[in-house]
Amino acid sequence: MKNTFGHDLAVTIFGESHGPAVGVVLDGLAPGIAVDDSFIRSQLALRRPFGSVSTARREADGFQIVSGVYNGYTTGTPLCIMIPNIDIQSDDYTKNRSLARPGHADYAAYCKYHGYEDYRGGGHFSGRITAAVVAAGAIVISALSKKGILIGTHIKSCGGVVDTEFADIPSDIIELNSKQFAVLDDEKGALMRQAIEDAASDGDSVGGVLETAVCGLPAGLGEPWFDTVEGLLAHALFSIPAVKGVQFGAGFDLADSRGSLFNDSFFMEEGQVKTASNNNGGVNGGLTNGMPLLFRCAVKPTPSISKKQLTVDFINGKDVTVSLSGRHDPAIVHRARVVVDSITALVVGDLLTERFGLDYLGGV
Amino acid sequence: MKNTFGHDLAVTIFGESHGPAVGVVLDGLAPGIAVDDSFIRSQLALRRPFGSVSTARREADGFQIVSGVYNGYTTGTPLCIMIPNIDIQSDDYTKNRSLARPGHADYAAYCKYHGYEDYRGGGHFSGRITAAVVAAGAIVISALSKKGILIGTHIKSCGGVVDTEFADIPSDIIELNSKQFAVLDDEKGALMRQAIEDAASDGDSVGGVLETAVCGLPAGLGEPWFDTVEGLLAHALFSIPAVKGVQFGAGFDLADSRGSLFNDSFFMEEGQVKTASNNNGGVNGGLTNGMPLLFRCAVKPTPSISKKQLTVDFINGKDVTVSLSGRHDPAIVHRARVVVDSITALVVGDLLTERFGLDYLGGV
Amino acid sequence: MKNTFGHDLAVTIFGESHGPAVGVVLDGLAPGIAVDDSFIRSQLALRRPFGSVSTARREADGFQIVSGVYNGYTTGTPLCIMIPNIDIQSDDYTKNRSLARPGHADYAAYCKYHGYEDYRGGGHFSGRITAAVVAAGAIVISALSKKGILIGTHIKSCGGVVDTEFADIPSDIIELNSKQFAVLDDEKGALMRQAIEDAASDGDSVGGVLETAVCGLPAGLGEPWFDTVEGLLAHALFSIPAVKGVQFGAGFDLADSRGSLFNDSFFMEEGQVKTASNNNGGVNGGLTNGMPLLFRCAVKPTPSISKKQLTVDFINGKDVTVSLSGRHDPAIVHRARVVVDSITALVVGDLLTERFGLDYLGGV
Amino acid sequence: MKNTFGHDLAVTIFGESHGPAVGVVLDGLAPGIAVDDSFIRSQLALRRPFGSVSTARREADGFQIVSGVYNGYTTGTPLCIMIPNIDIQSDDYTKNRSLARPGHADYAAYCKYHGYEDYRGGGHFSGRITAAVVAAGAIVISALSKKGILIGTHIKSCGGVVDTEFADIPSDIIELNSKQFAVLDDEKGALMRQAIEDAASDGDSVGGVLETAVCGLPAGLGEPWFDTVEGLLAHALFSIPAVKGVQFGAGFDLADSRGSLFNDSFFMEEGQVKTASNNNGGVNGGLTNGMPLLFRCAVKPTPSISKKQLTVDFINGKDVTVSLSGRHDPAIVHRARVVVDSITALVVGDLLTERFGLDYLGGV
Repeated sequence: MKNTFGHDLAVTIFGESHGPAVGVVLDGLAPGIAVDDSFIRSQLALRRPFGSVSTARREADGFQIVSGVYNGYTTGTPLCIMIPNIDIQSDDYTKNRSLARPGHADYAAYCKYHGYEDYRGGGHFSGRITAAVVAAGAIVISALSKKGILIGTHIKSCGGVVDTEFADIPSDIIELNSKQFAVLDDEKGALMRQAIEDAASDGDSVGGVLETAVCGLPAGLGEPWFDTVEGLLAHALFSIPAVKGVQFGAGFDLADSRGSLFNDSFFMEEGQVKTASNNNGGVNGGLTNGMPLLFRCAVKPTPSISKKQLTVDFINGKDVTVSLSGRHDPAIVHRARVVVDSITALVVGDLLTERFGLDYLGGV
Repeated sequence: MKNTFGHDLAVTIFGESHGPAVGVVLDGLAPGIAVDDSFIRSQLALRRPFGSVSTARREADGFQIVSGVYNGYTTGTPLCIMIPNIDIQSDDYTKNRSLARPGHADYAAYCKYHGYEDYRGGGHFSGRITAAVVAAGAIVISALSKKGILIGTHIKSCGGVVDTEFADIPSDIIELNSKQFAVLDDEKGALMRQAIEDAASDGDSVGGVLETAVCGLPAGLGEPWFDTVEGLLAHALFSIPAVKGVQFGAGFDLADSRGSLFNDSFFMEEGQVKTASNNNGGVNGGLTNGMPLLFRCAVKPTPSISKKQLTVDFINGKDVTVSLSGRHDPAIVHRARVVVDSITALVVGDLLTERFGLDYLGGV
Repeated sequence: MKNTFGHDLAVTIFGESHGPAVGVVLDGLAPGIAVDDSFIRSQLALRRPFGSVSTARREADGFQIVSGVYNGYTTGTPLCIMIPNIDIQSDDYTKNRSLARPGHADYAAYCKYHGYEDYRGGGHFSGRITAAVVAAGAIVISALSKKGILIGTHIKSCGGVVDTEFADIPSDIIELNSKQFAVLDDEKGALMRQAIEDAASDGDSVGGVLETAVCGLPAGLGEPWFDTVEGLLAHALFSIPAVKGVQFGAGFDLADSRGSLFNDSFFMEEGQVKTASNNNGGVNGGLTNGMPLLFRCAVKPTPSISKKQLTVDFINGKDVTVSLSGRHDPAIVHRARVVVDSITALVVGDLLTERFGLDYLGGV
Repeated sequence: MKNTFGHDLAVTIFGESHGPAVGVVLDGLAPGIAVDDSFIRSQLALRRPFGSVSTARREADGFQIVSGVYNGYTTGTPLCIMIPNIDIQSDDYTKNRSLARPGHADYAAYCKYHGYEDYRGGGHFSGRITAAVVAAGAIVISALSKKGILIGTHIKSCGGVVDTEFADIPSDIIELNSKQFAVLDDEKGALMRQAIEDAASDGDSVGGVLETAVCGLPAGLGEPWFDTVEGLLAHALFSIPAVKGVQFGAGFDLADSRGSLFNDSFFMEEGQVKTASNNNGGVNGGLTNGMPLLFRCAVKPTPSISKKQLTVDFINGKDVTVSLSGRHDPAIVHRARVVVDSITALVVGDLLTERFGLDYLGGV
């Protein structure tokens, strides 16, 4: 299905960084979901570059709902959102057309598309596409919250600085979702921002790790094979440019340990089955177990840096050096966080729709 | 699609641990792939329990090709392989029917299937299913090797012991594929086996990390969004029971570092574009870049341990303790390695078939 | 997806006419559907050749449920049914290996599979595969009937003889499902059987038209685009070898007429919206409208006839004549009827599962 | 997948009749297909209402390519086309909000979407959506023609007037594609137009039958089960509002005849396998056989008529009469013909891409 993801709630994306617009089609949304334009705007704002930790390209991110909403509610038919591209400076890119920017898809895309690709600003590979995903995700996030399902992400680590752990997940999520720079401990956040600025002044960039929690999910979502909750989420999350790893619960951290440590003991609390630890990240055998879903994404450092790098001119087949001079993000981990939330909402929305039927997330 | 995975080469699995058989249907295989029963058998042997590092359950893994092969070659129509279940001892499980074995899917499955699930031996959640996947994968591995595409996995770490790094990947893969216990450094392998035996004698288990390399792939496979090489592989790999994390290249290890370190410099070598490092694991922007695909799976410790654990009787809603007495693996990381290879082959086979058409992997 | 069909309830088929078995995997079945072996057997019996109107090949159609059923109920995990092939006589076919039997897929298959296809008895193209579909369909038919949804098919015409029209659809369906030769008017049935026998004694065959009704469906199933009820059903029904046309309601018969005639007037009856006629076959805009679903399949005459025919030897590229001497059906329209019912059940089951969720058809 | 269709070349549609725009996303297009805006415009012109045989609503059908085209060629990434809605008069519809227009989806949509649907002008059920499909289809039709694959449709019958048969298919197709009113015999066309005008002056409408031919296809496309050429085409064609039947070759016409008549004899001609007749419509066993693909669609009379009709107010649950006063087509069969061509092109493009790989239809 390529640029479409999801079974019962499917998302299709389109657009290039320097084309007229980027956009998304959501299909399978329940009818009757209230669509709140101001919430979509606020979610887009969380993704937008800001302050000294981001690129100087500032998109207005004005969005247009082209279909699927009538009188403020989803109709149940495909919902298309377009986000026009406005602040475009293609000159920076066209002169580097045959250079393989290290860490970027230029060369791989050339091999796949034989030179027909729109390479300006990364084209369809640009993080710009994620704006459309955030707009679409906002609608699903709203619908999920009415069902008591909350999604939140913090910057677990960035530039060598580590945030504190989730404590009370529901209230932590609410707090995180009110912050532009999503950390649980703002002092750690200040240090992270300093690390990003330091990298920027070195003509360099930094990456980090995002940790996401989802609470309020019923037990039993997902499938034992292939369409595990982990597999579906990872499939979608790896679309986010820069994500190079996904782990659930203790993942790689405790893989090497013993079963008696990794296993999460079950116990009863007020008639509910719970686990004492959550090393399995809320998933057993591919299915949700009723505990919060907990996972991390490794977000590599932004590949666009102004430092001089060795690379190739892949059209002329020769070694060259490159120093990228455009407007770049010294880090995107803080901007990617709302993209992770949005993609998580789309996957969770799909799982719930498949399990409980078309109307589950809607107004009836 | 649930228990089906793949677009142009699709795999559907079925079966329960204690039912008559487990099996798999492969659809979209090119006609004319030679099917070598002895290679299927040898791949199944790599997965089978052995020595003191595995369960005492010893399956014959006799397989029957039910369809899709004629005169020793794939026909191009769906290929079904069945593996009968023979050495079954269900008594061990039925007495624990309402106990949530920690780390297992019992409780989550009960929530999803309302008690109708075949819980014996984990039912459809059992690692037993992977035998069918290995048999199917063997056919694709054979076809890929004729195209110069090699897949190999080593135990990167287990029980605190770390294997050496890949050096010359093609020859490393050949060496690994000849070993029952897949490590690059056999001395490290001996220490790992000791660690597994130690855990076993403690009534405990250990996990580890598998690292896989694929060489010989053309650049440009995969899609920029959703069907990235990373996303497709992760989707499928998370099906393997116990896999809790997937990372490509440096993944989590260098996420927190700087772009100038993470980026892989390109250079020309004999007219080929290569990278000096491979922190991106052979994938840029979701597409293969011509370097070896390189990824790791976190394999949690086997959840079945004989040590006493706290848990719940989820039918009667009360806390209990459990000490599992069946035949269990003190580690599965060494057995899972061939499952990772098999799933990787299926995903790579799908990508190649989609890109180059139905006949690409076949005899014409 | 090729040999897999369905979204939330998916069916995958496999097998060749002269291989070890044909089979089917159903994925997405609700847990807790009672599986009645005797009903499966009786459905298979409706498909089996009988009397002088069918082939002399008599299959026992013994089936084995390989997975997905435990203690007599569906588990919710993939359900595989195998039907071994027993009464095989391949000699009749191998001698004609390079002959394109007119009306058959021999030549087209050779072009697709480059000669690797299992051509014996039509291989994967054989109507034999439909036995597996009937077995799978039986389980869904049972589940639907518990929801008040009934499916029945009669031979609308065969050999120039036309059956009467549906009158009281629910009771007509019950009556039809008790008959081996499904006609509403048994006198017409006797004439049809005579026409079939006449064709047989001429070394020829006849075709016909099947008409199917489904009652008890809620209004609003289906999608406006692509996954219309009509499109989904037609997609699946054209799989039945010999089906060459599908129409809903008045279809081709009144296409050429006027809107004032074709439109079905709505009226209220006991608080229910109904239509006075059913020229739209229970579907408006791709969605069910609450009236019985009503459609017809054109079933071409069996292509295997013993009469001498002109054709080609496609391997040697020359014109030849052929007179097929194997065991052939002089008509399959009466056998195909239960296949149509089964496929209809699978499609309807998929639509209901998608709309109302995983548990809808099940025991909870 | 609902509003998405296709495997390797997938089309997703969105939009409502009276919303800002209708549109389509094509995913899986080969890179390097020349995109000719004037051909897209000319295809849209074939669909547009004209003269006295169509509605008075006259859309400019200005289209915008939002993504997937760069420097006049497809890039290989998702191609989105938007067609703004301009000439909108919603007042005609809103006053009838609770009336079930006979033959329309109003009531079925209300049941599915619980009243949240955008009912203006039929909303997402409107034939207006087909404009986007035609624009997308034009790009694929261009690419196919470069491969020697031609698609053409004539009005086989309309208002009781029957067109002549295809004679020399390739030249017939070229002729048909140059005509606004697609008949092989223009005298018959004049009679059909008279019949349409007669219906219009009676406040009524007429339907008809479209017959389509595709030549230049290789033998062996399609699958034996489920994804038969017939099933895939029918699935997509039934999306066209008003299509109520699809048949291949002789379909219903000869279903009732004998095998010796229906079977198409094979013969060799200049080294090519051909058939003497084409009752199977170019498809054997679900696969193309190298002969022209030949099929018919039953197009019911336009349901919107100004004649008084009985119907219900489905919100208030009472019988009413309705006389539709908006701008309606007295027939759409002549406009639907280019929609059939477009959908056929999308399905054929998908089959070819799947069989021969991503680059097949492109510029490399």
